[in-house]
Amino acid sequence: MMIIDLNCDMGESFGAYQIGKDDELLKHITSANIACGFHAGDPSIMRKTVKLALEHNVGIGAHPGFQDIVGFGRRTIDLTAQEVYNIVVYQIGALNAFVESEGGKMQHIKAHGALYNIASRNIQIAEAIAEAVYKVNPEWILFGLAGSELIKAGERIGLQTAQEVFADRTYQKNGALTPRTEHNALITDPDLACQQVIEILQEGKVTCIQGDKVLIKADTICVHGDGENAVQFVTAIRSKLQAANVVVRRIGER
Amino acid sequence: MMIIDLNCDMGESFGAYQIGKDDELLKHITSANIACGFHAGDPSIMRKTVKLALEHNVGIGAHPGFQDIVGFGRRTIDLTAQEVYNIVVYQIGALNAFVESEGGKMQHIKAHGALYNIASRNIQIAEAIAEAVYKVNPEWILFGLAGSELIKAGERIGLQTAQEVFADRTYQKNGALTPRTEHNALITDPDLACQQVIEILQEGKVTCIQGDKVLIKADTICVHGDGENAVQFVTAIRSKLQAANVVVRRIGER
Amino acid sequence: MMIIDLNCDMGESFGAYQIGKDDELLKHITSANIACGFHAGDPSIMRKTVKLALEHNVGIGAHPGFQDIVGFGRRTIDLTAQEVYNIVVYQIGALNAFVESEGGKMQHIKAHGALYNIASRNIQIAEAIAEAVYKVNPEWILFGLAGSELIKAGERIGLQTAQEVFADRTYQKNGALTPRTEHNALITDPDLACQQVIEILQEGKVTCIQGDKVLIKADTICVHGDGENAVQFVTAIRSKLQAANVVVRRIGER
Amino acid sequence: MMIIDLNCDMGESFGAYQIGKDDELLKHITSANIACGFHAGDPSIMRKTVKLALEHNVGIGAHPGFQDIVGFGRRTIDLTAQEVYNIVVYQIGALNAFVESEGGKMQHIKAHGALYNIASRNIQIAEAIAEAVYKVNPEWILFGLAGSELIKAGERIGLQTAQEVFADRTYQKNGALTPRTEHNALITDPDLACQQVIEILQEGKVTCIQGDKVLIKADTICVHGDGENAVQFVTAIRSKLQAANVVVRRIGER
Repeated sequence: MMIIDLNCDMGESFGAYQIGKDDELLKHITSANIACGFHAGDPSIMRKTVKLALEHNVGIGAHPGFQDIVGFGRRTIDLTAQEVYNIVVYQIGALNAFVESEGGKMQHIKAHGALYNIASRNIQIAEAIAEAVYKVNPEWILFGLAGSELIKAGERIGLQTAQEVFADRTYQKNGALTPRTEHNALITDPDLACQQVIEILQEGKVTCIQGDKVLIKADTICVHGDGENAVQFVTAIRSKLQAANVVVRRIGER
Repeated sequence: MMIIDLNCDMGESFGAYQIGKDDELLKHITSANIACGFHAGDPSIMRKTVKLALEHNVGIGAHPGFQDIVGFGRRTIDLTAQEVYNIVVYQIGALNAFVESEGGKMQHIKAHGALYNIASRNIQIAEAIAEAVYKVNPEWILFGLAGSELIKAGERIGLQTAQEVFADRTYQKNGALTPRTEHNALITDPDLACQQVIEILQEGKVTCIQGDKVLIKADTICVHGDGENAVQFVTAIRSKLQAANVVVRRIGER
Repeated sequence: MMIIDLNCDMGESFGAYQIGKDDELLKHITSANIACGFHAGDPSIMRKTVKLALEHNVGIGAHPGFQDIVGFGRRTIDLTAQEVYNIVVYQIGALNAFVESEGGKMQHIKAHGALYNIASRNIQIAEAIAEAVYKVNPEWILFGLAGSELIKAGERIGLQTAQEVFADRTYQKNGALTPRTEHNALITDPDLACQQVIEILQEGKVTCIQGDKVLIKADTICVHGDGENAVQFVTAIRSKLQAANVVVRRIGER
Repeated sequence: MMIIDLNCDMGESFGAYQIGKDDELLKHITSANIACGFHAGDPSIMRKTVKLALEHNVGIGAHPGFQDIVGFGRRTIDLTAQEVYNIVVYQIGALNAFVESEGGKMQHIKAHGALYNIASRNIQIAEAIAEAVYKVNPEWILFGLAGSELIKAGERIGLQTAQEVFADRTYQKNGALTPRTEHNALITDPDLACQQVIEILQEGKVTCIQGDKVLIKADTICVHGDGENAVQFVTAIRSKLQAANVVVRRIGER
């Protein structure tokens, strides 16, 4: 039986600024990565999004990032590993307070944007994030790019990890995502996106842009909530997965 | 037997900016109110201060404030009660993550600066803070100005409260603190400051600047850590209290 | 001959966050109030918006506000008059650098949101803003609520002022705007909005919500750019004004 | 005749946080680099520092940095060249408004911290800064590390430049400063610091830590204001320079 979790970034609005169709997307995903006020989100948005996620019985995760709202957490800030540890503890603690005060339980942690990327290849940063999660609550699941240093760091310290693959991003020969700055970074056709996911689930491999098959493990699929057709894309992916006998279930339920 | 807690604001440095002699003061106080990154403090300072407080076996409290580092949380921002609730949940959650990740337990919550002041007289804001604390962890102790709306709100919702008096601030006829903008707001002589505290502990009353005796209850004394003679002041207060047979003990130990 | 300027807030996007249809609105207005990074906007948005406004030959104004992106400058922060002076100098200087570096000239200054409101009734704050503008460049035009303390302060110090009226907001007996928190604060029907403007231009009076006619002078009309029908509203207002023989011309051209 | 300018970072306090002994240092330096609110400083500090500098007849410069108060502008943020251009225009415009409103004239621009460092070796960033300065006011002098890409970019675009050397930092074979993370980065002995400066002025060369003599040109010396002995250090340097017949004069006076 093939099982997969479907996660999406959520709560990335900020004050009067709206991003994402969280209400709609929460009907179709199984895990929500909720921004913690550093790259997006604010205390009011966090509380609202946590409540919404609980209403939809979706697994809640903290989505810590670099402290850079104006850059949406997409620009690397040259922090030491200790500073990364500190900002992750801070953010996951802040989100957890909203989850617990609403009667829920946090399921997972997923780093955002530039922090996610750097943690996938920098061992010290990866270990800082894994340790931050472990020290605050060793029962939380650590999300990370499939095969990344972050996943390895999580496993070493004793966390449950969830290897993440992308339906709508292409892969390179070394298993890394093609950078967004390149023309062929995105898969915009839901059919191709779904085909990539099913290939990964069935074969444990993905066809990279160079044409080779690369080993990859998938516990959760990241779907993006900020595109114009985000809702259509997610519903298409989900129905195609189910048609292919893939069980879509939130990671914390296994 | 007269018992009193001695609390002080801590962790109010920010990045490269230093304020306060935390290392010294922690030897003499029993409870530390640690800034949460909104009016002062940052994740690195928070972690360091939590560790220091644990080493000194001092009760740890979160010290949430308005989001205004440049104004040090001393300027009122016109938030709704719901927004206050949200920023308090956020900040106490963030600090709590540092406390728990270092193996400690949070003892109390004390609002900072303009938020403290507004919560002492505005029922909606007071209730928002009390609810935020209660919903995140009903076992935490809520600090508030003695006799204030915040103390009443805490009692109504079922929190343990700690009524706070000031050794180095004068009182007005209605029990409020004399605003800092007035010339006689501060008591700079440790003897007079100590005398005021002992009067409160022995009689349950304070002599206000108008000369009347005003009813007041004291569970904890606030001492300031940011003056030049802060350490001298605290050690003087503490030794004088002990000489007057007052037991100085952290509130959470009772 | 009736002449009027048509101003609209612009450049209120922030990083990845979009607000307002600036491209569309710039075709129909004559003066743009460009956010300066404190309540909205960022250096990238400021540069882009200044360039756009210059391309459309629209009068450029700085739109300084309280430093509170998450609150969009709509929450009063309790600043001293000196602090208000300082934040206004800062913001208008920042915007002016973009205007001059693109070969343009700044036309006016208009305070935003809560700062606009407080400056309309608080003399010290009004004078602080007027002085800030005057000291940086005495040739800039100061926008303010018609009849407000800000207009009076501007006149006292020797600035050209532009009295502002609102097409889509109702007025109270004392000439103040009905607060947005009240149900009848907004005029959503373009016909009624236009009728209010023409009444003001023809009679120098506005019918307030209590039914009385209140004296009012109009140099510029504020149109809002953030509603769903903002573009339709502005084009409707403009064509109706022209049909009523009102010349729509930017204030700096007179 | 050997002439040199003596510059120092100033106005790096922030809200209630104090850094630097600006009052003292302004008596001894000839050019002040004033923080612009991104890495340090705030509108109130900026105004106060500009006034102080004018009173001391010291050349005023804007000191733009990355937007990162908590990191004091010392951490690289991965901005595009366009973003760097934008934040520099913003900051120099903001400071210039304080200078002009106090009746002064800006003399120079010096990038701060991580931005200074990256601009010394990255051509695109260097050109972005030079262009920002040139477009806002082509008469301002661009400070940069002696021999750096920033100096070259400034010269290419047509700005007057000031090549900067450090009295209290050691040099490497390629003319770069020894990174602060290395043990021998700082020269703490004023005699040695002064000797290095005089060597540079007399020979046009500096002895790097590898022992070689490296070509270097010096228009201005950077002295640091944040150490404990900053004032002593500056006065020692200045008197030793004068004893060696070096004229200490602000760069804009030549």
